[in-house]
Amino acid sequence: MEVVKVLHMNGGMGDTSYANNSLVQQKVISMTKPITEDAITQLYCSTLPKSLVIADLGCSSGPNTLFVVSELIKVVNQLRQKLRHQSPEYQVFLNDLPGNDFNTIFKSLPSFQKKMSSQLGAGAGPCFFAGVPGSFYGRLFQSKTLHFVHSSYSLQWLSKVPEQLESNKGNIYMARTSPPSVLRAYHAQFQQDFSMFLKCRAEELVLSGRMVLTLLGRRSEDPSSKECCYIWELLALVLNEMVSEGFIEEEKMDSFNIPQYTPSPSEVKSEVLKEGSFSIACLEVSEVNWNIYSNDGGYNVAQCMRAVAEPLLVSHFGEAIIEEVFSRYREILSDRISKENTRFVNVIVSLIKKE
Amino acid sequence: MEVVKVLHMNGGMGDTSYANNSLVQQKVISMTKPITEDAITQLYCSTLPKSLVIADLGCSSGPNTLFVVSELIKVVNQLRQKLRHQSPEYQVFLNDLPGNDFNTIFKSLPSFQKKMSSQLGAGAGPCFFAGVPGSFYGRLFQSKTLHFVHSSYSLQWLSKVPEQLESNKGNIYMARTSPPSVLRAYHAQFQQDFSMFLKCRAEELVLSGRMVLTLLGRRSEDPSSKECCYIWELLALVLNEMVSEGFIEEEKMDSFNIPQYTPSPSEVKSEVLKEGSFSIACLEVSEVNWNIYSNDGGYNVAQCMRAVAEPLLVSHFGEAIIEEVFSRYREILSDRISKENTRFVNVIVSLIKKE
Repeated sequence: MEVVKVLHMNGGMGDTSYANNSLVQQKVISMTKPITEDAITQLYCSTLPKSLVIADLGCSSGPNTLFVVSELIKVVNQLRQKLRHQSPEYQVFLNDLPGNDFNTIFKSLPSFQKKMSSQLGAGAGPCFFAGVPGSFYGRLFQSKTLHFVHSSYSLQWLSKVPEQLESNKGNIYMARTSPPSVLRAYHAQFQQDFSMFLKCRAEELVLSGRMVLTLLGRRSEDPSSKECCYIWELLALVLNEMVSEGFIEEEKMDSFNIPQYTPSPSEVKSEVLKEGSFSIACLEVSEVNWNIYSNDGGYNVAQCMRAVAEPLLVSHFGEAIIEEVFSRYREILSDRISKENTRFVNVIVSLIKKE
Repeated sequence: MEVVKVLHMNGGMGDTSYANNSLVQQKVISMTKPITEDAITQLYCSTLPKSLVIADLGCSSGPNTLFVVSELIKVVNQLRQKLRHQSPEYQVFLNDLPGNDFNTIFKSLPSFQKKMSSQLGAGAGPCFFAGVPGSFYGRLFQSKTLHFVHSSYSLQWLSKVPEQLESNKGNIYMARTSPPSVLRAYHAQFQQDFSMFLKCRAEELVLSGRMVLTLLGRRSEDPSSKECCYIWELLALVLNEMVSEGFIEEEKMDSFNIPQYTPSPSEVKSEVLKEGSFSIACLEVSEVNWNIYSNDGGYNVAQCMRAVAEPLLVSHFGEAIIEEVFSRYREILSDRISKENTRFVNVIVSLIKKE
């Protein structure tokens, strides 16, 4: 599987689109707001740029895409009014992989920009938007041009499925039954990808530039801990069931693995220190319930996971089984949510570019 | 009609897509190559930028989109090798209206970038791409950041249909039978739009930055001259025929006008001088046959015009009549091409940003 070509959130505005199934991600963005606001405030006050360049990496397409950016700009606009400075111009780069539905974002921009400029009021600088297709595990921007990088719920995605996962039979991610070699392969891929990410951004950010990164992660030092693996284990349960009923070939199932790694705070910290270009302003963990905003939690979580994972599943197993997979997944999720207190764990890190 | 929302070339890769029906535009780009190469050479040698920022305005989606940019970068790469300079980084901005099919461009980028970097060879700087949705009749980029602006076959499109065209009955563009007030309204809209374009780009370009603009235009000083209006007059012929047969309401036909203006070289020159930010390095006129590359010229030109005009027609008349319109248009075009030597006229201007 070529992750760069396959991985993307479901596009458009339909029932199974990411745009209509990203409440968890929205909640996480809101929870991270104090950290983000603190970082942009310090950035603005220490650098006072004439032109402020913000990049959202792994922006996807939906209401969350422009939400963070608009919040950041509002904070800067209030600051410059308080300090009686002339407004900077704003340049916003929205990045995701080339398969992302940029058309939908772009069509929503004119009305967003109109709303934005009426909210900011007179005297606010112009705000320019650009879409940047490509993997953030490579260079995306000119050297020393970015002031602020934001990324939420994207960096847990790896650049590729780790190699040598042949022994991970019956699983689709790290699991309690995964052999140690599988856990090591996943961790090694995370280390390689995350340090490459830091290296690239270090070249692109200005001195004292800031990054706030939120990853799906875990508290435990055990990479096969239930807190991060359970959601995929339940999907594996469905797939194994469908293997035993003859809907899916066993070989297909055994060769499918999710290109994701959900790190612990100390794993994140260790990569940042090793790479060396950034100091850590803040490193936190938070949690969000699988079941938010609604009574039918099973339906919501299943739709959310579908918006995220459908392209991966379709690419590997084909279209035909998808409805059945997610119908069964929804049932299992509803059952577990009613019996257990299930949560996603988030690792948030705020970084400052050193010279 | 809100031109910003409606105007876009047909997306995708199908039979009626712009991607598969833009041979005329490709030919024009090739014809303009000496002027473009001259401009980028002078730019590079006079400014030697560490990072070279190129914008293609009205990029559409198809093989032409990346063609110009890759040619420009190749020229610079040869120059820097000859001069034994370190390669600049390249930042390419691809702009079009928000309805343009950016997804198709973005999906083609990974393979394009791979090919590009193998052609440029070792030592060439990285090349970053971004899509910029929005009207070029407003600001799109940060102040003083662009080095080179290219735009081909886009600036003849106006920001809106001119007002007060009620008296242009039976026509859909300027025509021999249009009253003088209609010609004046079209010209006034062009003046307003083109000078706004120059003003915005003047703010965005660095000192000595360059622009090469190619517009569909005319040689004559008469705005209703056949050389620029004939192609639309033939479409009007079809629509009037369909009015008389009851397929289209007369009122609908009378209220439809194409948001385009095909200027003469002296009209272009006059706006550049009036606006004052640019000096003219070169102003030329060239011609290209309607019928290029193929025997069935009628089919090709009709497909080309369909790729360009279908969204405008659909927005005004609805989907239902489209096939019939273009089937009749094709017949008329075939007939005329076989009898007359029909040509598009291009106005090309190369500009230098003064302080």
